[in-house]
Amino acid sequence: MPMTRRYVEQLADGDNVDEVFLVFDKQLRANRNGNSYIQLDLGDRTGTINARMWNAGEPLFRSFEAGDFLQVKGKVQLFQGALQLILNTFDKFDSNRLELTDFLPHTQHDVSKLLERLKTAVRKVSDPHLRALGETYFIDDEFMRAFARCPAGVKVHHAYVGGLLEHVVTMMDVAEKVLPIYPEVNRDLVIMGVFLHDSGKVRELSFYRSFSYSDEGQLLGHLTIGIEMLAEKAKRVPDLTGEPFPPELLLRLKHFILSHHGEPEFGSPKVPMTAEAVALHAIDLMDSRIHIAVREIADDRSESAWTPYNAALGRRMYKGGRSPATAAGDDAD
Amino acid sequence: MPMTRRYVEQLADGDNVDEVFLVFDKQLRANRNGNSYIQLDLGDRTGTINARMWNAGEPLFRSFEAGDFLQVKGKVQLFQGALQLILNTFDKFDSNRLELTDFLPHTQHDVSKLLERLKTAVRKVSDPHLRALGETYFIDDEFMRAFARCPAGVKVHHAYVGGLLEHVVTMMDVAEKVLPIYPEVNRDLVIMGVFLHDSGKVRELSFYRSFSYSDEGQLLGHLTIGIEMLAEKAKRVPDLTGEPFPPELLLRLKHFILSHHGEPEFGSPKVPMTAEAVALHAIDLMDSRIHIAVREIADDRSESAWTPYNAALGRRMYKGGRSPATAAGDDAD
Amino acid sequence: MPMTRRYVEQLADGDNVDEVFLVFDKQLRANRNGNSYIQLDLGDRTGTINARMWNAGEPLFRSFEAGDFLQVKGKVQLFQGALQLILNTFDKFDSNRLELTDFLPHTQHDVSKLLERLKTAVRKVSDPHLRALGETYFIDDEFMRAFARCPAGVKVHHAYVGGLLEHVVTMMDVAEKVLPIYPEVNRDLVIMGVFLHDSGKVRELSFYRSFSYSDEGQLLGHLTIGIEMLAEKAKRVPDLTGEPFPPELLLRLKHFILSHHGEPEFGSPKVPMTAEAVALHAIDLMDSRIHIAVREIADDRSESAWTPYNAALGRRMYKGGRSPATAAGDDAD
Amino acid sequence: MPMTRRYVEQLADGDNVDEVFLVFDKQLRANRNGNSYIQLDLGDRTGTINARMWNAGEPLFRSFEAGDFLQVKGKVQLFQGALQLILNTFDKFDSNRLELTDFLPHTQHDVSKLLERLKTAVRKVSDPHLRALGETYFIDDEFMRAFARCPAGVKVHHAYVGGLLEHVVTMMDVAEKVLPIYPEVNRDLVIMGVFLHDSGKVRELSFYRSFSYSDEGQLLGHLTIGIEMLAEKAKRVPDLTGEPFPPELLLRLKHFILSHHGEPEFGSPKVPMTAEAVALHAIDLMDSRIHIAVREIADDRSESAWTPYNAALGRRMYKGGRSPATAAGDDAD
Amino acid sequence: MPMTRRYVEQLADGDNVDEVFLVFDKQLRANRNGNSYIQLDLGDRTGTINARMWNAGEPLFRSFEAGDFLQVKGKVQLFQGALQLILNTFDKFDSNRLELTDFLPHTQHDVSKLLERLKTAVRKVSDPHLRALGETYFIDDEFMRAFARCPAGVKVHHAYVGGLLEHVVTMMDVAEKVLPIYPEVNRDLVIMGVFLHDSGKVRELSFYRSFSYSDEGQLLGHLTIGIEMLAEKAKRVPDLTGEPFPPELLLRLKHFILSHHGEPEFGSPKVPMTAEAVALHAIDLMDSRIHIAVREIADDRSESAWTPYNAALGRRMYKGGRSPATAAGDDAD
Amino acid sequence: MPMTRRYVEQLADGDNVDEVFLVFDKQLRANRNGNSYIQLDLGDRTGTINARMWNAGEPLFRSFEAGDFLQVKGKVQLFQGALQLILNTFDKFDSNRLELTDFLPHTQHDVSKLLERLKTAVRKVSDPHLRALGETYFIDDEFMRAFARCPAGVKVHHAYVGGLLEHVVTMMDVAEKVLPIYPEVNRDLVIMGVFLHDSGKVRELSFYRSFSYSDEGQLLGHLTIGIEMLAEKAKRVPDLTGEPFPPELLLRLKHFILSHHGEPEFGSPKVPMTAEAVALHAIDLMDSRIHIAVREIADDRSESAWTPYNAALGRRMYKGGRSPATAAGDDAD
Repeated sequence: MPMTRRYVEQLADGDNVDEVFLVFDKQLRANRNGNSYIQLDLGDRTGTINARMWNAGEPLFRSFEAGDFLQVKGKVQLFQGALQLILNTFDKFDSNRLELTDFLPHTQHDVSKLLERLKTAVRKVSDPHLRALGETYFIDDEFMRAFARCPAGVKVHHAYVGGLLEHVVTMMDVAEKVLPIYPEVNRDLVIMGVFLHDSGKVRELSFYRSFSYSDEGQLLGHLTIGIEMLAEKAKRVPDLTGEPFPPELLLRLKHFILSHHGEPEFGSPKVPMTAEAVALHAIDLMDSRIHIAVREIADDRSESAWTPYNAALGRRMYKGGRSPATAAGDDAD
Repeated sequence: MPMTRRYVEQLADGDNVDEVFLVFDKQLRANRNGNSYIQLDLGDRTGTINARMWNAGEPLFRSFEAGDFLQVKGKVQLFQGALQLILNTFDKFDSNRLELTDFLPHTQHDVSKLLERLKTAVRKVSDPHLRALGETYFIDDEFMRAFARCPAGVKVHHAYVGGLLEHVVTMMDVAEKVLPIYPEVNRDLVIMGVFLHDSGKVRELSFYRSFSYSDEGQLLGHLTIGIEMLAEKAKRVPDLTGEPFPPELLLRLKHFILSHHGEPEFGSPKVPMTAEAVALHAIDLMDSRIHIAVREIADDRSESAWTPYNAALGRRMYKGGRSPATAAGDDAD
Repeated sequence: MPMTRRYVEQLADGDNVDEVFLVFDKQLRANRNGNSYIQLDLGDRTGTINARMWNAGEPLFRSFEAGDFLQVKGKVQLFQGALQLILNTFDKFDSNRLELTDFLPHTQHDVSKLLERLKTAVRKVSDPHLRALGETYFIDDEFMRAFARCPAGVKVHHAYVGGLLEHVVTMMDVAEKVLPIYPEVNRDLVIMGVFLHDSGKVRELSFYRSFSYSDEGQLLGHLTIGIEMLAEKAKRVPDLTGEPFPPELLLRLKHFILSHHGEPEFGSPKVPMTAEAVALHAIDLMDSRIHIAVREIADDRSESAWTPYNAALGRRMYKGGRSPATAAGDDAD
Repeated sequence: MPMTRRYVEQLADGDNVDEVFLVFDKQLRANRNGNSYIQLDLGDRTGTINARMWNAGEPLFRSFEAGDFLQVKGKVQLFQGALQLILNTFDKFDSNRLELTDFLPHTQHDVSKLLERLKTAVRKVSDPHLRALGETYFIDDEFMRAFARCPAGVKVHHAYVGGLLEHVVTMMDVAEKVLPIYPEVNRDLVIMGVFLHDSGKVRELSFYRSFSYSDEGQLLGHLTIGIEMLAEKAKRVPDLTGEPFPPELLLRLKHFILSHHGEPEFGSPKVPMTAEAVALHAIDLMDSRIHIAVREIADDRSESAWTPYNAALGRRMYKGGRSPATAAGDDAD
Repeated sequence: MPMTRRYVEQLADGDNVDEVFLVFDKQLRANRNGNSYIQLDLGDRTGTINARMWNAGEPLFRSFEAGDFLQVKGKVQLFQGALQLILNTFDKFDSNRLELTDFLPHTQHDVSKLLERLKTAVRKVSDPHLRALGETYFIDDEFMRAFARCPAGVKVHHAYVGGLLEHVVTMMDVAEKVLPIYPEVNRDLVIMGVFLHDSGKVRELSFYRSFSYSDEGQLLGHLTIGIEMLAEKAKRVPDLTGEPFPPELLLRLKHFILSHHGEPEFGSPKVPMTAEAVALHAIDLMDSRIHIAVREIADDRSESAWTPYNAALGRRMYKGGRSPATAAGDDAD
Repeated sequence: MPMTRRYVEQLADGDNVDEVFLVFDKQLRANRNGNSYIQLDLGDRTGTINARMWNAGEPLFRSFEAGDFLQVKGKVQLFQGALQLILNTFDKFDSNRLELTDFLPHTQHDVSKLLERLKTAVRKVSDPHLRALGETYFIDDEFMRAFARCPAGVKVHHAYVGGLLEHVVTMMDVAEKVLPIYPEVNRDLVIMGVFLHDSGKVRELSFYRSFSYSDEGQLLGHLTIGIEMLAEKAKRVPDLTGEPFPPELLLRLKHFILSHHGEPEFGSPKVPMTAEAVALHAIDLMDSRIHIAVREIADDRSESAWTPYNAALGRRMYKGGRSPATAAGDDAD
């Protein structure tokens, strides 16, 4: 593998390629003359490209699977308005020799700093039971590794490695700024709610080589998983504090997880019924909605005053820059 | 009228009363013996009380209307578990001699300080057109008097004199705190959106002697009224700046007003399509939801762990204080 | 207390009463002459009656609470078309001396036989892990006492002591009869699903002296509670089998609990995604719907061809007996 | 019975009454002294009044039923703000001696003229099969008597004797005026659709002594009944024409009945799928909506600029007359 | 035609073909050189295959229609990952010489045995009117031929010849097993409801050479058609019994047909209002839901733990076999 | 350009073409040999055709834009079942030399006559204020030019030049015919409501070279724009009448615009609350629904008894002509 990786987004018509890619899809096809060829979708964290190896048969086709990495050699060409990669040779590549983050999109923030901010916020919680509960998560290496890596969702726009952590830390920032305006809302509880509300996603999602749902994720969902994890952790707290975890406190934390989607029509089994759960829902909504809107606009590099229609959002976003008066004038000439 | 007013919430069984009240409702009835009597709902900003004048006929009944003020003399007694006021005499009272704020609930904040905070925030806006637009509202005395007085709604829980101003200023606080976390969102625009999003309520609502909707409010609504007011004000800006108000800026401001309810099902004719409109909606939602939740809990003085069911909210709120373990234990004894 | 209890439904105009009742509600009121009296709602498992003690003041009123039992003496009289009880004396009564089942409605089936049928069905399960799981519930005395007593809901029509157990055992009957028609559906799993699908209700509901929701029940709901209980029990299984409980089996059982309401609009966080979960939902629906319909008709003793409108059902039920031809004929005379 | 009936709406405090009324409801009650009395709701087509006969017992109470007519003697008095009738004596009255139209509200139009207009319009249809079909209804005396009498619905605002016929004839007027603007829409078909769309109501509703649903009406509804009646009539057509009724024509007529509610959410099993069915739905909607709006305004004799809130309409109607500018000015003084 | 038919699902790359197929679609196209060719979709009950005849012009193209049968000769080849059939010759084939069941999917049960079970169940009905009604259907040869052949729907998953009969007979099995548990529910009525609830489908659907809706089916639907058929049959009953068919019984049967979809949102014009209609709806739901779930799993031969996403179901089904613990472990490595 | 234009719908296989077309889309592509070619969508008001120029590179590709007009020479050929145009040469064409109406579909009515009918109807209004208001629109040349040209919508089925004017004038015809049937509804107001209800579309839509939404249209919508335009015009009325425009009249007109969509679910911020607004909504619905239905049937030239499925309508329309009896018979053979 070369020192500096050549990413899919850097490939251009006529380039010679010698690089490792992840196989997203594979098919064996026959052309009009009846000769078989292999067609692949190859990719890395910057995108995917269609690739073909002519005159290749079933034995070669069966020598690898989707999800494997291939070291490929070949040439880029333009076909029907899109680039494709014509392969000369390829070999399976050992994933242990790879930097996996090259193959999935990830947050642009420094994950270790995000983790530091998370821990600092939780350790400033004044209630000793809640603070100890936070530690039971922090000392669970497997959980923390997954939490640092987990995306916030599997769909294109929210999905990147570290997305969940970034979302949680930004929500903590919002909470720290906003809660002093509402003194009746308990800061300790909201900070813990922010930390834990989506924690079940580390088992709901599968995010090692691609983003998808685990069996458990599909059958149970992150609310149920998160509550089960919380019940486990709360049993560990007495080891740190010498006292049982207060039942009402545990109930309030579970209610955070169960109610943070806010409304039954958004999959919330319970509506928020504590002042803190109402605040958590509002903070979650604010961060996710603004994040999507800002990203939608930032990702569109066209010169149009509008982003393309986004079906998930149900709208286009207005970027501006073209005077509406002029636009109307066009018609009235 | 006595130096210090005796409010409805201060009346007790057996009290002799000599006070002015607002007539909310009046009826002429007959008892079983066929003698007619007058039954009234009298009130001030702290509540209402049922009142009766025995052996009173039609001429007296026609001498006043609901909405009038009456100077009444009589005695408080307990009847069927509630207090009622048995009247000896009453006379119409000139409303010019009254402090009208005694008769409608109002904000607990100092309105002049709220106005100061509003103006300070708007005057910190860096765009000169927007800043000048703010001034066109500030120099409109009739608007500012109404804006300082207008409630945020007519239903019991959000309705008090100054409620709209308090809501707007709190939203500005939230905006000032939160926007630095989202640098792509334009602060100037959001601050102006917060100021203007509900401005049409000063004509939609009627809030002099009671809270209700004006004809215009019922037939058009505050979104349409607010946009019409904005169009008027924007035409005044060139008097202050010497330049026409930029059309795209005006379009974005109108879009704030039209989209701030967020979703079609909540009466929003347009969904938010700029990053700033998305932020405005989120801030509006956060302040109104937390405000309701906190107030619901604060207003309930019962010892129950739960507030009474609130049909508008569709839920009860959990106040806590009773251990759920114990509660479950009760049943399992 | 007399040998044979005199129930509320047996009281008639003019009866002299000396009996123990549960206090459902209490109020201190004043009549027109200003004399205070105590008004109570007294009841047992057959209904409630309004009771009054004239000329009774605050000290007596404070000597008991709603939820207490009172030994009362007095006389029944007809007032405004309904019976009421005029009290001469009353005293608090020690609930330890009472048969509590006299005060709440309960199933007409023999609870011990229902329990026997439940155990027999579960013990016929062929999978040893599932069978052992059943035993971990059976040996939990506190759970079994609550399970035998718990109603299926708090609303009038499904609510009686033992209602949940009766519902579960009837569903088992349906499952035993129907599953041979669908050999691809695993009987073992469905039987366990029937047993456990509503098990969280033993903590969601409070059913000792009246039917209501516990704090935990309101904030979490029986799905979340049931899954947490199941996680606990599954950890006990290896003590009986010497093997860990198979993860896929546990996942399928949790999915039963989470999906048995069938559709998101009926509060099901997940739709049924296994053949057995689909079957469980259908069996649950069949038993509850037929039960309500049959009961609605049986409970109506009027001569009308129709039951009264039931708001929860959203309909009246047709009992028949009057020819529609005749009915139409009435109009055409 | 006097020559000129004294209607409920004409009764005033102090009147002596000797008149026949329809019994809408009856109850046997006891007063505080334990003496029983009979309480009745008596009425005619102008309204209802509460009536009481003191010191009357069970034998008298059982001597009549709701739905019977009573000849009553007594006196009107004002009680608790409403009129009530204190009865001295009453006797059952033979309904054969009564003009039943005195007891149910009815159309203000001349029913025989409405029938004439209906027949004229149908007989102008050019298609001989459709014209003959119309005759099969016209020669069915039982149907025509019911059709001339049937209300359009049982709720207060649309419900009066002859309401259905009035609605159908007005719709025919609209159709005659509007269809020439849309020459592609077949006039013959629309006229027959207007005639038949609600014809099932003559068996769905019961309208002899009060307005209610028949058993068949509740279990099947007027769409199904109307189609069944149409199938019967179509079989009679060959007796008149000597030819079988064309199947496609019959299909289009049945589709009118099934689709005239327009949308599934308004109970339409099928959406309109012919141009004529689309037109019929639009005409039906136009007449019913304008009729309700006009009537709502005409029925309100208050001086307010608004009608009272109508829950069925989901709104108040604006009558106007008060300047909105003034209304807003009130608040700003 | 060969003795043993060669089905579409048996074709493989390189096969020479001489077989009769049904034409599902035909097009005349031109290739890049401007030469025209015929492209066809050919099929039988096991699937369809794309076929092309090169250098074929308009006269040949017009010599047959979609819906015809063609005897074709040619060769199978792999093209772009799918099989296609290159035709050398083809001729129209007389459908009278064909076994039509070869060309549409059909039930795997023996239709004559299903019919026997249907008749047996209906003939066990104790009410003589209902039993006679059943016979009026059984002696209607045209109805019975259609009923034995009709699919339960036109969409892929429920659609096969005999599907309706299989569904009805399975529902009768469920009813026989379950009804003894609910003795208040009348068995006779439910059995007749099961028989007749979907009987209108024999005219709603068109299922001779393909599955689609008839004109009548689209404009009226099977509920209306089924009720009209029932009205006809009920008139024949007196020929068998010598007595008129009881009106209430007929009303209850029509209500079955009209209410068996259960809820307005599933196209049920009336909700079930008799205990038997409630039971019928529950049995229908149970059989259709379990049938779909079991079939969805059985039809998927992939090794995945999940079936593919089914848009009609709105879900994937879990087949299991892969441990969720392992799946989660993948991610946490 | 030739005397008589050759439209897209007139092109046939083998035609030589020398004509001007509008460029709807352009792409630069490469074929399998790596040679680049230009692919275009060319069109006029009768449709679009795919065009290719082989061996054409980037400089030529950049010499024009979508939205330009090109004079093209080439030949029509059939490819894959559709016509395409192989270009030999093309040149940009000056749009000033073109009749733009050749490139967008337009109403089949004479626009000047439609305008005449509009003005006549408005000038017959008896209220002088309303009549003067109409003139303020008529004397605004820019508005009238746009109003005469504006389509009623951008989607295929309602979209053509002059569509809005045609819709308004047809609605006026309906109003003139229908209003005499409802004398309580004010004709003057309804006529003005018809004129103005969609007037904001002249700025909401962009319709010079294609049909789309303006920025203002997307962010505000035609209701808000129309009310703003009305507020402007009402201020001009005193110049004509010497009196201020009556406030209640203005309020009623604004309410027309805001409520004419009828129901919140169809984007109506207010429901109709005056009798005239109810009538306007009904007239709008009638004309748009009948127009769509009639056009859907007229546009379908297939021999099928049904139009193709129209997703916007959510249905197919029945054209008839095939006997349903025969259709059903097909199946029963």
